[in-house]
Amino acid sequence: MTFEAQKKRAVERLQISGADEEIAGIIEKINSFDDFFTTSSCSGRIVLICLPEIGAKREAKFIGKWHRPVTKEEVLDAIKNSAGASEKGEIWLLSQSPILHVACRDLEKAKALLRIAIESGFKYSGIKAISSKDRKVAVEIMSTERMDVPLGRDGMLFCSEGYIDFVLSKSNFMLERGKEKLNRLYHGLNLE
Amino acid sequence: MTFEAQKKRAVERLQISGADEEIAGIIEKINSFDDFFTTSSCSGRIVLICLPEIGAKREAKFIGKWHRPVTKEEVLDAIKNSAGASEKGEIWLLSQSPILHVACRDLEKAKALLRIAIESGFKYSGIKAISSKDRKVAVEIMSTERMDVPLGRDGMLFCSEGYIDFVLSKSNFMLERGKEKLNRLYHGLNLE
Repeated sequence: MTFEAQKKRAVERLQISGADEEIAGIIEKINSFDDFFTTSSCSGRIVLICLPEIGAKREAKFIGKWHRPVTKEEVLDAIKNSAGASEKGEIWLLSQSPILHVACRDLEKAKALLRIAIESGFKYSGIKAISSKDRKVAVEIMSTERMDVPLGRDGMLFCSEGYIDFVLSKSNFMLERGKEKLNRLYHGLNLE
Repeated sequence: MTFEAQKKRAVERLQISGADEEIAGIIEKINSFDDFFTTSSCSGRIVLICLPEIGAKREAKFIGKWHRPVTKEEVLDAIKNSAGASEKGEIWLLSQSPILHVACRDLEKAKALLRIAIESGFKYSGIKAISSKDRKVAVEIMSTERMDVPLGRDGMLFCSEGYIDFVLSKSNFMLERGKEKLNRLYHGLNLE
């Protein structure tokens, strides 16, 4: 399949699944360049997961997911509901940086994108794969803002509500910082 | 400077600075191949930092650092000492995955190393830079185990000791899992 055919398919998939509002402009801009297309994205989020075992992320159950600042009440409600549903496992609150996966026509294009991403503050960006069939390169754009905090187990909190306030103030701050970097990335995207 | 000259310099630097015991075998093995040399490494660790502001990692002060499982008493002592020294800022406990930076002669070699790293469980590995001067490629080998927990501010804890017990049981478990992956990587390193 040619790069163009793969891009067409990815853009169709995107039209069906949609993208987070804060990242839609960036996706549109990247896809407007002939040598690039996006394959997945998230504008950054705060999630609550129930984890049967560390590392077994595939089996993790989302018990809350927010792409905006979140309040303690929302978090406590989500935990209460999971306990009501008898979810078993550790409860973790994760702050996740914006993330973007971009297919680039070749290595030179990938390097150009990578430079812009890093200059915009996405310092965890890198090349994740290089196709041996068609020279296509997969770039991951990611930032360092991240937090992974265990809160309790089997619906029970191992920390105080005051502590959750503290953790959420950090999470909400990181989320905002991620959005600022997306804004910088948008304005830096000169790929022609 | 040729690849060989850069490697010679990196190996000399390594002889001066040394490497963590658990990762020394891997470094030796990688450096035994003509097309690779390591530039930095850590076998995974648990650290306590005092952070004036989120993201300002450069200004972070280490108040504790362990490459082995750690006890609550050690963590509380480190916090007490930092408070005694009037350190200002947020106190975070971080669990960090093993990390390795490897210079590879060219892209093909980098891809071979990347494949082995990912198969050994280092799923956050990727290519961080490609030299436009000499085709050299920088690979980062990293795993997903990570925890970032804010504990308090200005030497004061915002969580209970019971919660610290819980967090440390996770940290120590992650540290062990990192070591297991290093072991798998060591045995998988067939790069010739």
